[in-house]
Amino acid sequence: MTTPAPIPWEDPPAARTRPIWRYSQNPVIRRDLLPTSNSIFNSAIVPFDRGFAGVFRCDDWTRKMQLHRGFSRDGLSWELDPEPIRFECDEPELETFVYGYDPRVVRIEDRVYVTWCNWYHGPTIGVGWTTDFETFHQLENAFLPYNRNGVLFPRKVDGRFAMLSRPSDDGHTPFGDVFYSESPDLRFWGRHRHVLSPVPNSWQATKVGGGPVPLETSAGWLLLYHGVRLTASGALYRSGLALLDLDDPTKVIARTDDWHLGPETAYERTGDVPNVVFPCGLVHDAATGELRLYYGAADTSICLATAQLDDLLDAVLAAPPGP
Amino acid sequence: MTTPAPIPWEDPPAARTRPIWRYSQNPVIRRDLLPTSNSIFNSAIVPFDRGFAGVFRCDDWTRKMQLHRGFSRDGLSWELDPEPIRFECDEPELETFVYGYDPRVVRIEDRVYVTWCNWYHGPTIGVGWTTDFETFHQLENAFLPYNRNGVLFPRKVDGRFAMLSRPSDDGHTPFGDVFYSESPDLRFWGRHRHVLSPVPNSWQATKVGGGPVPLETSAGWLLLYHGVRLTASGALYRSGLALLDLDDPTKVIARTDDWHLGPETAYERTGDVPNVVFPCGLVHDAATGELRLYYGAADTSICLATAQLDDLLDAVLAAPPGP
Amino acid sequence: MTTPAPIPWEDPPAARTRPIWRYSQNPVIRRDLLPTSNSIFNSAIVPFDRGFAGVFRCDDWTRKMQLHRGFSRDGLSWELDPEPIRFECDEPELETFVYGYDPRVVRIEDRVYVTWCNWYHGPTIGVGWTTDFETFHQLENAFLPYNRNGVLFPRKVDGRFAMLSRPSDDGHTPFGDVFYSESPDLRFWGRHRHVLSPVPNSWQATKVGGGPVPLETSAGWLLLYHGVRLTASGALYRSGLALLDLDDPTKVIARTDDWHLGPETAYERTGDVPNVVFPCGLVHDAATGELRLYYGAADTSICLATAQLDDLLDAVLAAPPGP
Amino acid sequence: MTTPAPIPWEDPPAARTRPIWRYSQNPVIRRDLLPTSNSIFNSAIVPFDRGFAGVFRCDDWTRKMQLHRGFSRDGLSWELDPEPIRFECDEPELETFVYGYDPRVVRIEDRVYVTWCNWYHGPTIGVGWTTDFETFHQLENAFLPYNRNGVLFPRKVDGRFAMLSRPSDDGHTPFGDVFYSESPDLRFWGRHRHVLSPVPNSWQATKVGGGPVPLETSAGWLLLYHGVRLTASGALYRSGLALLDLDDPTKVIARTDDWHLGPETAYERTGDVPNVVFPCGLVHDAATGELRLYYGAADTSICLATAQLDDLLDAVLAAPPGP
Amino acid sequence: MTTPAPIPWEDPPAARTRPIWRYSQNPVIRRDLLPTSNSIFNSAIVPFDRGFAGVFRCDDWTRKMQLHRGFSRDGLSWELDPEPIRFECDEPELETFVYGYDPRVVRIEDRVYVTWCNWYHGPTIGVGWTTDFETFHQLENAFLPYNRNGVLFPRKVDGRFAMLSRPSDDGHTPFGDVFYSESPDLRFWGRHRHVLSPVPNSWQATKVGGGPVPLETSAGWLLLYHGVRLTASGALYRSGLALLDLDDPTKVIARTDDWHLGPETAYERTGDVPNVVFPCGLVHDAATGELRLYYGAADTSICLATAQLDDLLDAVLAAPPGP
Amino acid sequence: MTTPAPIPWEDPPAARTRPIWRYSQNPVIRRDLLPTSNSIFNSAIVPFDRGFAGVFRCDDWTRKMQLHRGFSRDGLSWELDPEPIRFECDEPELETFVYGYDPRVVRIEDRVYVTWCNWYHGPTIGVGWTTDFETFHQLENAFLPYNRNGVLFPRKVDGRFAMLSRPSDDGHTPFGDVFYSESPDLRFWGRHRHVLSPVPNSWQATKVGGGPVPLETSAGWLLLYHGVRLTASGALYRSGLALLDLDDPTKVIARTDDWHLGPETAYERTGDVPNVVFPCGLVHDAATGELRLYYGAADTSICLATAQLDDLLDAVLAAPPGP
Repeated sequence: MTTPAPIPWEDPPAARTRPIWRYSQNPVIRRDLLPTSNSIFNSAIVPFDRGFAGVFRCDDWTRKMQLHRGFSRDGLSWELDPEPIRFECDEPELETFVYGYDPRVVRIEDRVYVTWCNWYHGPTIGVGWTTDFETFHQLENAFLPYNRNGVLFPRKVDGRFAMLSRPSDDGHTPFGDVFYSESPDLRFWGRHRHVLSPVPNSWQATKVGGGPVPLETSAGWLLLYHGVRLTASGALYRSGLALLDLDDPTKVIARTDDWHLGPETAYERTGDVPNVVFPCGLVHDAATGELRLYYGAADTSICLATAQLDDLLDAVLAAPPGP
Repeated sequence: MTTPAPIPWEDPPAARTRPIWRYSQNPVIRRDLLPTSNSIFNSAIVPFDRGFAGVFRCDDWTRKMQLHRGFSRDGLSWELDPEPIRFECDEPELETFVYGYDPRVVRIEDRVYVTWCNWYHGPTIGVGWTTDFETFHQLENAFLPYNRNGVLFPRKVDGRFAMLSRPSDDGHTPFGDVFYSESPDLRFWGRHRHVLSPVPNSWQATKVGGGPVPLETSAGWLLLYHGVRLTASGALYRSGLALLDLDDPTKVIARTDDWHLGPETAYERTGDVPNVVFPCGLVHDAATGELRLYYGAADTSICLATAQLDDLLDAVLAAPPGP
Repeated sequence: MTTPAPIPWEDPPAARTRPIWRYSQNPVIRRDLLPTSNSIFNSAIVPFDRGFAGVFRCDDWTRKMQLHRGFSRDGLSWELDPEPIRFECDEPELETFVYGYDPRVVRIEDRVYVTWCNWYHGPTIGVGWTTDFETFHQLENAFLPYNRNGVLFPRKVDGRFAMLSRPSDDGHTPFGDVFYSESPDLRFWGRHRHVLSPVPNSWQATKVGGGPVPLETSAGWLLLYHGVRLTASGALYRSGLALLDLDDPTKVIARTDDWHLGPETAYERTGDVPNVVFPCGLVHDAATGELRLYYGAADTSICLATAQLDDLLDAVLAAPPGP
Repeated sequence: MTTPAPIPWEDPPAARTRPIWRYSQNPVIRRDLLPTSNSIFNSAIVPFDRGFAGVFRCDDWTRKMQLHRGFSRDGLSWELDPEPIRFECDEPELETFVYGYDPRVVRIEDRVYVTWCNWYHGPTIGVGWTTDFETFHQLENAFLPYNRNGVLFPRKVDGRFAMLSRPSDDGHTPFGDVFYSESPDLRFWGRHRHVLSPVPNSWQATKVGGGPVPLETSAGWLLLYHGVRLTASGALYRSGLALLDLDDPTKVIARTDDWHLGPETAYERTGDVPNVVFPCGLVHDAATGELRLYYGAADTSICLATAQLDDLLDAVLAAPPGP
Repeated sequence: MTTPAPIPWEDPPAARTRPIWRYSQNPVIRRDLLPTSNSIFNSAIVPFDRGFAGVFRCDDWTRKMQLHRGFSRDGLSWELDPEPIRFECDEPELETFVYGYDPRVVRIEDRVYVTWCNWYHGPTIGVGWTTDFETFHQLENAFLPYNRNGVLFPRKVDGRFAMLSRPSDDGHTPFGDVFYSESPDLRFWGRHRHVLSPVPNSWQATKVGGGPVPLETSAGWLLLYHGVRLTASGALYRSGLALLDLDDPTKVIARTDDWHLGPETAYERTGDVPNVVFPCGLVHDAATGELRLYYGAADTSICLATAQLDDLLDAVLAAPPGP
Repeated sequence: MTTPAPIPWEDPPAARTRPIWRYSQNPVIRRDLLPTSNSIFNSAIVPFDRGFAGVFRCDDWTRKMQLHRGFSRDGLSWELDPEPIRFECDEPELETFVYGYDPRVVRIEDRVYVTWCNWYHGPTIGVGWTTDFETFHQLENAFLPYNRNGVLFPRKVDGRFAMLSRPSDDGHTPFGDVFYSESPDLRFWGRHRHVLSPVPNSWQATKVGGGPVPLETSAGWLLLYHGVRLTASGALYRSGLALLDLDDPTKVIARTDDWHLGPETAYERTGDVPNVVFPCGLVHDAATGELRLYYGAADTSICLATAQLDDLLDAVLAAPPGP
């Protein structure tokens, strides 16, 4: 892996009270970047080549939900392939791609893995990989339906692949906990463990689900996740922080009781699904400690927020003992 | 019928990807055009005299839903009668007008007919007519409750009056198909036929209902209709296209799998019911092929969009074989 | 029409407090009278030939709901045709019989008409006729979906066919009023009028729907109907009485505020759907004033109850002014 | 009580059609006035010292709902105590403050009373008082759960304390009437009377609840209240007017059938809960007849609207006989 | 108070495993004891004169829910007044008796008090009294709607009247806790305290509500209460035991984690609402320690079960520490 | 494995129309076989020693759901251990047994495996094993929540353990398909494949789930499963038949469109959950072809039905091509 081109940095606004701040030119990927797209959101990227590559949820004007690859030099200006990704799959049962959405991407050893919400008689977790962003290979679905928000860890944990997911029902699920599962081979999964629950009477009272790929730090796995509360006019999605034990990620070391990013701006407040901030992709510049969070805004566009890793760690470590 | 004064034309924006574009000065009828109105939307017009006349849904500040007549020279600047229409009705059972909403108007032979959602122990389809927009006569309701979105064809089909409607329940109906019915006399209705269903996993997955009066073209009846999908924060209304057989309008010749107009602008994204584009009135200038679509925006105001008939026909004819 | 063979008469039990009493050998048609039937219920009969003929709802062990004809000499012992009725239908759109249930039969002039809940993109009212119970002809569905419990009057009213029905939604409808509609030709229907509503806080608080064909009496049309209340463990169906004006059946002359027959016995209390008494067929012996009510019990079998017409008329006429 | 400093006055816009108009610099209290607050809304104030004091609902970034005191010279510029109010309470069962929201404040004799939605095994009505806005004392909850929107009258009525409230369930209650209750001692409550119901088919069809403390006028108690209608995308909250009899406030003298203030501006249309106008605090300048209404906007900020008392009284007295 | 005639005693069946056993001739009051009654259930009695008197829920054949008085010599054979109780009430707002159900009766000092579920713009707790079972006086409703199962204690506690109740919503409430409230005068109520919650994953997971009047014992107040679990086919009502502190009945000393009486027999398993055992009336013979529990069976009839007080106390005191 | 003692055989009733018939002395295990049990149902057995052993769902009077072992000589008379099974488990996260229900047991090679619905932050599939019915070992849960009805195949398929299950939500799930999953080690599971869906408009329209362990026959795996339809008074559970390909059990060779056993008798029609027939255990006597089906009745007791394997195979093979 070559050193990625840096994403241009913007200093925080003077008066900020939060450890994370929005990019001034949001959205970075507008809903109609592709001529066929109605909305592009809830997507993820990795450093690739001398820049970045990503897998993007593009809903077209028939609301077909497809995954598209994209490339960028600077993480801000993106070129998306108008053709959706076609996964190579030698398993006939799985080769028909009905829909895919909310992808995450992660480099593990020499492959870039993609996980997404994949239809197989209901939503479940699809798994695929590529090395070159040209050819994509599809593996078995990780779990039975009904599941969403499958997020791989960026390395094996205790010798096994590790994944977070949020078991669901087949509609607008009114509940949701984060679970941890392991696999020796990305084919068979087991040792399912509970990680995070919603918190009653809070901003995350209805459901919680994993966001970007967890970031390994010396303090633990830093997890950004979405928390949802049902209000009198629908669901309100925000982004929270947790820190999981490095050796045993089912142990929650710390978890902020507040959110760090929620709908405030016009592009988060209005859109196809108003009041959604959905954290999905994270880029860490180890040299500078700079973090870039790519998040879906209002199920419509992709936005960028920036933070210093140390600030987020401070925030989560300062959190009161969680529920 | 005299030749209507033309509605001023605006060329499309340079970069458009859709066959229809918004009027730059939307909304054309603001929510408070009448001093008593809270919102004016989901309404329809016909050429009349040397300009246009229409029947308008005006919800006042008690949220009483009434129908008002209005007149315009150029289709853009409208004068609405602050008094609601009082239908003459010699049928005592029907003469109390409880509420009326979402009217369509259509000229058939020498009368202008109005259909609307009319309360009669629940929502059903009211039918009335006028010749002069002074006196309005009310006929029998076309169907039993519970029904909405009754849309007459602009001429008899096979010797009978023809109407589309969307059978409903008595609340925020979570289902909805379009049906076709016939009548020899606008009094008795029968020969009910199915026309359009929702499409699973699409932008029109929850319900579909007729929009403006179908437009007769050599290729068939062009139907703009609304399609609805329930999201995590409520219903999302958009406008789709179908082409029905001229001689047998229950046969769907073509149907686009995408929508052509959906909530994007602030006046569609926010309002009393956010994220609603509701196509309701259509004016065709046969000489130029220009179409003006009057649509309700966010259950709050009336907006205008413009297209060339040929572009819409091309779009619907190019659609893949529908579901 | 020949004089029907009399149905054997049972005197009422000594201590009865109700104007109607059960047949001692209930059920008269058991759930498995046909080798293929799981349940036979909610069905109707007419005098025919020298005995009786009927149309029966037989749900088989795949729970396919079909209509079967049946014949009886004495109204108690029945022979059912194991083959379902195949309606002749020259309308391709309607000829596929998806399901049919809860039939009513009525002789009008020289034909016996059958109405039933017929699937056509949802439940609606199917209409057919026969003269010989050999050949059955299917007409247009009377109404748009969603509707159930269509009941024809036994003669034209004011020169037109007349039907009661209960507009519904597409599931276990939690509401339901009885409406009256007219048709000049059994093809086109209109002049829809409201007849009966549920009564809040009563045994018929959830919905009401027509039962057997209304019986013409000098006092008016006697209507037995079902009334439903949702309890903590599901719907509770009972049978009530109303009297409609002979000349204008939309006028309710009288309506008992109590029910006259509700689930009490084991065969009504338990079955595939416990706690259902569903009045469906009525035979009047004009010579004696004897009435036989055939009703569905627990969605499982057909039972018989007996009354004197005068007693029922007395009961309904003595009812307090209805809601 | 000293004379309060006047709140700066803004004349109404030229073309207004309503008796109440918005302050041009809304919101007066932004969502993040406190560094810890995500939203500040649905709050109430009283003249205090030489200016104003208030009790404010501040939801922090954990969405903990707390009450904070605040002070202002001019009613526009506010200083809020970042520490939530800690009520002194000698009743152990009540001293744990789980959450409090939507406070009202009212001066009765020499005390300022606070009522709010207080958790006690569900939402109910908390009651407290202060004389100096330094020390706050908590009394017994007025009612059993589940209740919201408890509003005290500003003086005893017929020798007893009087309160309006809106009995609820434990979620997003889909119903709601306003009731009146009395207490000799603010400890035991009784003589519960019905006051206001929702109005079917109107803007207040789903529920209604008391707003600010009723204002005593020679014509009666002027009550601003919220009315809610469920739309296809959630609840729509607006503010209505009623006039209650001075001696018997359960008698509704008049009630406008329209609302006087509903969501129109961006700060009311969008926010954490879009489309909410929630009237909560009212200041009357007896010398000038000027009214200032403090209302929550979109569950996000506090806004100000201005009216002349006489205009509101004219409006409510001109209303048609209510439902 | 004279000594009541003893209720005949039946020894328990040999093999019983429960501390309570059914009367062999159940039901003691059949559904049609009154010629007008469809069902008689959920009722309560007190020793009176030389026998017993009671207040009975009689639903007639219009499902009007009324309270009737009744008298018995031996507690087994009952005579009910066919006329419903008419409460004298000098409060016009309350004098219209819309419905009343599920009464409890209790002697406090020289009066017999009746509490019941009383409609006042929704279900709430009605309160009345009599000394002679001839004249009944109605007091204020104890609480605001929506409430059910109001149960008075048989003496003042700490100088005040005391009542248990179960706040509800306005339908088939899917939640329910028992609360305790006090009143100095049976007119104003306050000091509301929580007593019992449902227990997750148990037979009482959905709701719990007070049963008969608590019985004072040296060990505490013995409370029989109903616990409900929603099953795949509706609610399942059973009877449980708790012991409340004599001086502070909000303190639960002990609570069995099992039920002691649940639906098993045909008269409990089937009826208008199947699977309901609803404990409502309790008679204690201090001389013998014998207890008679009158309970509603399947919302249809009244049944009797018998126990020794000591056995019940042993059972509740042996219970594991409750949830 | 020794030869099991035969279960006494009863010839079918003379007039039967179904290939399976009930044991005349049903239930074989009554609800209170254990002094602590309220209900014993939905359980499974295997030949063991010289008779049979089983794992039984015993719900006690606190409705704690536990698994108990039991033994029988003849399959009819059972002795159950009053102590619930305590699984040995060296995984602390799993060792707390919250609840277990609806067990299946199967001998694979030299172990008897138990699967059940096991709570782990919601219902999922627990897995354990024993060799002697003395010591039971618990393995990892097979899947993430929410899942029910995990059924192991009686041998490895294509070298791997194989399991059917029915993914669910966390309540009374209104949907349910049967899926197939594989594991190399009973620890990690994958290759999830769809097997069976509900059939619209049928007796199995709501959900379907695996019953007893599939029976290997030369024609394929014979699967008895439960199918559910929601009626107006709750869920109706019946038992259906499918035949799965021996080598690829995700291929459905045949499936009857009718059920073979549904609620008919009093012990199936009434009980804690009326109208439930739940097939759970199956014993095949290879020598005679006799099958004994143990099924839960009304969530209350265990009953027995008898069939000839050939008859069931004939029935399923004669089924029309399935949906």
